[in-house]
Amino acid sequence: MSRADLSDMTCTVARTLEIFGDTWSQMIVREMFLGSRRFDDLQQLTGVSPHTLSKRLKRLEAAEIIRRHAYSDRPPRYEYKLTERGRDLWPAIIALKAWGDKWLDGPATAPITLTHKACGQVTEPYLVCSACGEPIDALGSHATLSPDMQRERAARRRQNTGT
Amino acid sequence: MSRADLSDMTCTVARTLEIFGDTWSQMIVREMFLGSRRFDDLQQLTGVSPHTLSKRLKRLEAAEIIRRHAYSDRPPRYEYKLTERGRDLWPAIIALKAWGDKWLDGPATAPITLTHKACGQVTEPYLVCSACGEPIDALGSHATLSPDMQRERAARRRQNTGT
Repeated sequence: MSRADLSDMTCTVARTLEIFGDTWSQMIVREMFLGSRRFDDLQQLTGVSPHTLSKRLKRLEAAEIIRRHAYSDRPPRYEYKLTERGRDLWPAIIALKAWGDKWLDGPATAPITLTHKACGQVTEPYLVCSACGEPIDALGSHATLSPDMQRERAARRRQNTGT
Repeated sequence: MSRADLSDMTCTVARTLEIFGDTWSQMIVREMFLGSRRFDDLQQLTGVSPHTLSKRLKRLEAAEIIRRHAYSDRPPRYEYKLTERGRDLWPAIIALKAWGDKWLDGPATAPITLTHKACGQVTEPYLVCSACGEPIDALGSHATLSPDMQRERAARRRQNTGT
């Protein structure tokens, strides 16, 4: 968990991390992409403690990443499903998977294989440029900061150096 | 930070999260993609405490995501640079940015604009299928678990239910 609050920062990466950037939130969302919906499944299959799971589910629900619905009235029992916002986190999980498959396991078969439903083929999704459609990576791109973000960063430097 | 150790899990998402899945590691790597290399810059521009920054830099270095090199001998001063492994985490940061730009800011201009050097255009990278080249998302894909991962998950369920 972060100690400083990132939710006031201009950067959308920072604000997304404040909502979703801790290890367990990402593990829980990964598990939901694998189809788990119930508290016990999420708890057992990720290894998170029930207390932490409960807290993370509340936060993910408040952020509208998941929604809760009752599947039993007596006793009251709930399932959790990813919303559209939540399903949109798929590229973040896929990026972690791609990195782990490449750098942690070497040439062994990945523990999770993805199939693209539309074409029926096994797939290892990768990023392309939205303008030209060619593959894009860190060295092939350049970041430009908005005036607001530049001002914020200048203020952070002044605040720390006391000038 | 995670309490349970995810590094023994078969899933490469889980093991990647154990290395890189906490909020500050991701903020530090995001800041390095923006060009910051020195301890003070990383500290001021992310807002992490010096103590936590120091611990995270050590872990990222041990994971070969960053490397440290001296830029001054007296006094000894170090810079940190992303390695190839580290630069390969770019899609994970870009996924967080894309999510935040879409869901946290609405139609406002993103605080960070990316340009694709090869084509010179502003870009919002997205994932495509490696087999057919078409866009791919959570609902358009299907995950198949390896036999090892299926066994591990069955064991986790048995362990927890005591059967």
